[in-house]
Amino acid sequence: MRLVNFCAGPCTLPLPVLKEAQAEFVDYHGEGMSLFEMSHRGPVYREVHDRALTLVKQVFGTPDGWEALFVQGGATLQFALVPLNLLGRGASAGYLESGVWGKKALADASHHGDVYAAWEGAAFDFRRMPAPDEIRVRPGTRYLHVTSNETIGGIRLVQFPDLGVPLVADMSSDFLSRAIPWDLFDLVYGGVQKNLAPAGMAVVFVRRSVLEDTNRDLASYLRYDVHAAADSLANTPPVFSIYMMGKVLTWMLDQGGLAAVEKLAEEKAALLYQAIDHSDGFYLSPVDPASRSLMNVVFRLADEEREQAFLSAAEQAGLVNLKGHRSVGGIRASMYNAMPRSGVEALVEFMSDFRRG
Amino acid sequence: MRLVNFCAGPCTLPLPVLKEAQAEFVDYHGEGMSLFEMSHRGPVYREVHDRALTLVKQVFGTPDGWEALFVQGGATLQFALVPLNLLGRGASAGYLESGVWGKKALADASHHGDVYAAWEGAAFDFRRMPAPDEIRVRPGTRYLHVTSNETIGGIRLVQFPDLGVPLVADMSSDFLSRAIPWDLFDLVYGGVQKNLAPAGMAVVFVRRSVLEDTNRDLASYLRYDVHAAADSLANTPPVFSIYMMGKVLTWMLDQGGLAAVEKLAEEKAALLYQAIDHSDGFYLSPVDPASRSLMNVVFRLADEEREQAFLSAAEQAGLVNLKGHRSVGGIRASMYNAMPRSGVEALVEFMSDFRRG
Repeated sequence: MRLVNFCAGPCTLPLPVLKEAQAEFVDYHGEGMSLFEMSHRGPVYREVHDRALTLVKQVFGTPDGWEALFVQGGATLQFALVPLNLLGRGASAGYLESGVWGKKALADASHHGDVYAAWEGAAFDFRRMPAPDEIRVRPGTRYLHVTSNETIGGIRLVQFPDLGVPLVADMSSDFLSRAIPWDLFDLVYGGVQKNLAPAGMAVVFVRRSVLEDTNRDLASYLRYDVHAAADSLANTPPVFSIYMMGKVLTWMLDQGGLAAVEKLAEEKAALLYQAIDHSDGFYLSPVDPASRSLMNVVFRLADEEREQAFLSAAEQAGLVNLKGHRSVGGIRASMYNAMPRSGVEALVEFMSDFRRG
Repeated sequence: MRLVNFCAGPCTLPLPVLKEAQAEFVDYHGEGMSLFEMSHRGPVYREVHDRALTLVKQVFGTPDGWEALFVQGGATLQFALVPLNLLGRGASAGYLESGVWGKKALADASHHGDVYAAWEGAAFDFRRMPAPDEIRVRPGTRYLHVTSNETIGGIRLVQFPDLGVPLVADMSSDFLSRAIPWDLFDLVYGGVQKNLAPAGMAVVFVRRSVLEDTNRDLASYLRYDVHAAADSLANTPPVFSIYMMGKVLTWMLDQGGLAAVEKLAEEKAALLYQAIDHSDGFYLSPVDPASRSLMNVVFRLADEEREQAFLSAAEQAGLVNLKGHRSVGGIRASMYNAMPRSGVEALVEFMSDFRRG
C-alpha cells in the first residue's frame, strides 16, 4: 500500500513518474543499456539534459536573459557559491535571518564575504517574516538574500521586498510552487529534493548580465559562468536527478503548469489551516497567520502530551512523516507539489476523527 | 539486447544490480514509498547510508584511522576542496601534470593555494607517467597530487612515489580497482561514475589525523571536517548514487572483493593489449608499455582512415562507445569493474575478424 507521505524532504514524488522511470530503468528506450551507463556527452543523454533545462525555465516562467544551471551539492553548496561569485571587494550583502535556513545561509556566507543580518527573526521567535520596512539594507549592498520559505519554522515570505537592491533567494522548500517577480531578482536557487526530483543537485536561475561580472578567480566547479557556458555539462552531471526532474516537470505541465500547481498549493494549505483554526483550540498554529507557509504546515496539539499518540494513530492510518523537526517538536505536514489534494483531505479527516476521540 | 558498453564514464554497471534496483524502485522493501521519497534522517535510508559507508572502506581495504566521505560535485569539486582544506598559509602543493585530469586539478587548485607542477608530461606527449626520480618536490610541500589513471591518455601510475611527502590521489578512473599503499597517502578521492555507481558524487578517503588540521574558515559544504563529523549527512545526500554504490560494492564482494576485481582487470587488459601487440602493426598502442592503463585502453589503427569503419562495424556487432576522446581521436576501450571478461573477449575477437577483413 502506498502511504501518504508528508516528509519535509526528500518527499513524495508523482507515482506515474516513478512507474515510468521503473519501466525504463534497465534498458532505456531500447538503447541496450540504462540511462545511467551512457556518456553524458552522447545524444541520448543530451536530449534528456537539454529538455530538462528547457522545461525548468518554461514551467517556472523564467524570462529571457536568464540561465538555469544544474549544480550538485544542494542549496548548501549555494550558500558558498553565491558570495564567492557575487561579492567582489568592497561589496557587502544583507541576509534575512528568518529561521534555520536563513541563518545557515548567512553563517556560511560569512566565510566568503562581507555579509550582515538585515533582519533578525529571533526577536519574534521565528514565527513570522519581516515587513519590507523592517529590513535594514546598508549602503553598498550587492544583494539581499531571502529564504522564501522556512521549512522548519513553517513560514513563508509572501511578498518579496522591493528595496532597490537585487534579491537572491533560496527557494528550496517552495521551489516552482509559486510565480515570482523576476524583475526583483538577480539569482534564485533551490535544492530539487522537495518539489522537483530526488536529491542530488540545486537548480540555480541566474540573470545572464550578472554572469558577466562574477568572480573568475575560483576553481571551475565554484564558478557560475563556467556552468553556464557549458550548459551544466562542464563535468559529469547528476544524471538521475536531472532525468527525474524532467519527468516531474512534464507531469507538472500535465497538471496545468505553475498556475495550477500554485492554486492547488493554496487550496491544500487552506484546507489544513482551516482544520487547525476551527478545532476549538484542539490544534494550534504557532506562526503568524500573515506568514503561514503553503508547503510546511506546522502545528501543535493544545495538549502537547497527546502529540505522540496523534503521530502513532496517523501512521496507523497511512499518514506518515508528520513529526515536527527535532529542533521545534510538534507536528509538521509538508505538502509539496506532488502531494495530491486527497492526501490532505485524508489528513484533515483524520484530525477531525482524532479530536472527537 | 544489452550492448557491450566501453564508455569512459558514466559506464556499464552490473546487470544484477540494475535489475534489483528496478524491482524495488517504486516501493522500497514494502515501505509504501520509494527510497527517494524518504527522509535522509529516517531509519530506512540511514541503514542504506551506513552500509555504503562501511562497505566502501571494507572493499577498498581502508585502514583504521581513515574516514570515507560522500560529497557531491564529482572529482571536479575536489579539485577545489583539496587545496581549500589542506593548504594553510605558507604551505604549497606539487601536482603531476600527467594528462588532461592532472592539468585540470592543478589549474583549479591554483586559485586556492600556492601550487606548482612537480612534473610535466607534455614533454612526453602525455604518453607515460614519471619515474619517482623525475618528480621535483619543493621544500615546504604539504602534499603531492597524483592522478592514478589518466582516462583520456590511457596511462596509469603503476608505482605510487614515496618521496617523503604525503600523496593526494585523484583515482576517479581506477577507483577501487587496485590495492593501494595507504601509508603513502593523506587523501584519496574519485568520482563514482566509472567503477562504482551512477554519477552524482565523489567518495573522499581522508586520514582522520588530517581532519584535525583542515581549514575551518570555509562555508560548511566546503569543509571535510563537517562532512566527517556528520557521517556525510550534514545536508541531504545524493541518495541514488549512495544506494546504487552499496549494491555495486556488495556485488564486488560476491565477485571476490578487491583482489579478484584487480586480477580480473589485469587479465582483461592483458587480453586487449595482446591483441594490439600481436596484430602485426595493424593496431598500435601509443602509450609507453610501462604506463599502460588497465582501465582505459587507447589504441589506433595503423591506417587511421579506417578507424571510422572500425567503430561502425564494432557498433553493428554490439560493441559500443569505443570512440577515443575528441581531443586525441582513435579508439578507446574503457573496461571498468563491471565490464565482464566476455565483453573484452568479444572485442578481441571482433578486432581479429576486422583485421582479417
